[in-house]
Amino acid sequence: MAPVVGGEVDARRLARVGLSRIAAPARASLREQLQAVGEVALWERLRAQHPGVDPRQDIEAAERVGARPLCPGDPDWPAGLDVLDRIGGDRSGDDGMPLVLWARGTAGLADITRRAVAVVGCRAATDYGLHQAQELGFGLAERGWTIVSGAAFGVDAAAHRGALAAGGSTIAVLAGGVDVPYPAAHADLLDEIAASGLVLSETPPGSPPYRRRFLTRNRIIAALGAGTVLVEAGVRSGALNTVRHARRLGRTVMAVPGPVTSAMSAGCHRLLRDQREETALVTCAGEVCEEIGEIGELAPRPSGPTRARDGLADLVLQLLDVMPARSAIGVAALARRVDCPPGTVLALLGPLAVEGLVEATPAGYRLTALGRSSSQAGGSRAAPRS
Amino acid sequence: MAPVVGGEVDARRLARVGLSRIAAPARASLREQLQAVGEVALWERLRAQHPGVDPRQDIEAAERVGARPLCPGDPDWPAGLDVLDRIGGDRSGDDGMPLVLWARGTAGLADITRRAVAVVGCRAATDYGLHQAQELGFGLAERGWTIVSGAAFGVDAAAHRGALAAGGSTIAVLAGGVDVPYPAAHADLLDEIAASGLVLSETPPGSPPYRRRFLTRNRIIAALGAGTVLVEAGVRSGALNTVRHARRLGRTVMAVPGPVTSAMSAGCHRLLRDQREETALVTCAGEVCEEIGEIGELAPRPSGPTRARDGLADLVLQLLDVMPARSAIGVAALARRVDCPPGTVLALLGPLAVEGLVEATPAGYRLTALGRSSSQAGGSRAAPRS
Repeated sequence: MAPVVGGEVDARRLARVGLSRIAAPARASLREQLQAVGEVALWERLRAQHPGVDPRQDIEAAERVGARPLCPGDPDWPAGLDVLDRIGGDRSGDDGMPLVLWARGTAGLADITRRAVAVVGCRAATDYGLHQAQELGFGLAERGWTIVSGAAFGVDAAAHRGALAAGGSTIAVLAGGVDVPYPAAHADLLDEIAASGLVLSETPPGSPPYRRRFLTRNRIIAALGAGTVLVEAGVRSGALNTVRHARRLGRTVMAVPGPVTSAMSAGCHRLLRDQREETALVTCAGEVCEEIGEIGELAPRPSGPTRARDGLADLVLQLLDVMPARSAIGVAALARRVDCPPGTVLALLGPLAVEGLVEATPAGYRLTALGRSSSQAGGSRAAPRS
Repeated sequence: MAPVVGGEVDARRLARVGLSRIAAPARASLREQLQAVGEVALWERLRAQHPGVDPRQDIEAAERVGARPLCPGDPDWPAGLDVLDRIGGDRSGDDGMPLVLWARGTAGLADITRRAVAVVGCRAATDYGLHQAQELGFGLAERGWTIVSGAAFGVDAAAHRGALAAGGSTIAVLAGGVDVPYPAAHADLLDEIAASGLVLSETPPGSPPYRRRFLTRNRIIAALGAGTVLVEAGVRSGALNTVRHARRLGRTVMAVPGPVTSAMSAGCHRLLRDQREETALVTCAGEVCEEIGEIGELAPRPSGPTRARDGLADLVLQLLDVMPARSAIGVAALARRVDCPPGTVLALLGPLAVEGLVEATPAGYRLTALGRSSSQAGGSRAAPRS
């Protein structure tokens, strides 16, 4: 987007930048005035009380780090954020659409959020959680999904890194200004994210990430994704706040299970237990796609070894069960064992021999190696052989 | 129950024992005849074709291992099994009530199954699964629940052992005769189970545990429990067969999650994912009780450390967030930071000081140690202090 000089759209943009300096996120009261009189008139009304605020300075500061202010109505404004003005209900009252979104990076926000998913979790993640977050970030990016998260230590960073490793795009939504790397240790990660994806914030350049802003920031992470995946979280993790936003905004909520012995999975398990019908258990990127992707994006089903016995009738199963492996047995004896007429047994032995599961010997019938192995596979116990 | 000598009830018992020798489990066709003419007449009709069958011999063989045949109508017959005749639908056709239940041990079956739960899983359990099975067996037995399982390697045995360790009662339902320890390596375990609980089977003494009988046996495990807990299972584990029976019989189905990287938890996760609304995720004995116990048997909720900030209004939170820890700040500056009238800020600082979260200094207000620590606890990030 070009820098801002004169013109109607630019007046709107300048006004919103000015307003966002006064209040970002905007309280409900300010948003009402905004809707009533429009941003330009509202800014004209308020600017006098804030002589220190200069929107052009903020825009220039943003440009110095390759950032620009996006406003509702811009071609680049993501449709996903509209829901924030449609659906209220966040007790904080800060649940509206951002006045401005500062975007650092060259990617088109509307474009890369057309297929986006939020991946969040706790900062004190375990190796298990970090691994899952990275796997999900990688696998979802491979499938063309943009990973949205908060650039925090732990799950957030692992999810971003997974997406970057797959050469996919990822979005970090910050609580402070896009020119204020937070956490500082992630300055390089944020540079990397901005290079291929976007670093976003609704707070003006230079804003420190006050704690409250993390909570309001989370609504943007939830709104930008078609769904939110909770990878690891203690029962009081801040990541649950993002999940609450996702639920409130009607987004799909997913959670990754873990060992019940892990406190860092307790938040995921409680969510899956207490909100069973509204929370999908997911174990891989493919299953996330099943939840939020187009119809037919199905994950490959995990499956055990298929057994030669599958599909055979129960009586045939029974027949194989009582069939000796080493010694041989006659048809009459088999018939007694399965409590079934000899004629029926004989009729079944033919196909079984053709299938190579049993073989006829001078002494009678017995299981082949194939028949033995298939009878020992799967969840069933092998029957003692006579 | 006394050994069998003459009398109407005994004739019924003898007939059922004879019939169970001919066909256990009884096929649907035989159960229809049974309902039509009664066990005594049916046995009279069929015994000629089975000259080798002597019910008294079976009963004596059972008595030699301290076992007795229970029949429907006996005071000791568990009410839970009636459902097997009420609900059909198992494609095997072997879904009826057992003709006879051979019970090894002195406990009263009806008595100890009044509060019983099935705990099942795969034989190739991981250390994690074994630990969870034992924990559940122990915790549920402690709460007065009888653990029903199949005495198999892995999860089954661990669940039995957990119950025994808690001094509780447990029931092993075998696929073969109660005098045929299977697996042989669990002969001692089965003795221990019989000493305080019961070893059950619907197959007559001496019957080998043919593979098919494990599948039909599973319906009895499912029917005896108010619910079935799946602890660990691959996607083709035989334990899923018990879960299918539990579902079919209208019992509560529960599953324990595990690492998504573990193939032995894949069956549990698929169940929780594909049958979300009918499957409860459980992580401990207390949560199992919540699902199947009386109203009000609630598990203690896992919870993180409570913070001094909990319950404070959002504006107060915001105030604490922008409050410096080292330097001090005046009311006017605070008011600007939270975008709120100075009067309101002043009104809030009083209670906060009383709560010991902030302190007034000659230079203005600042966070106390308590305020600092509470602002860094929990899921929220600490805000940078000016």
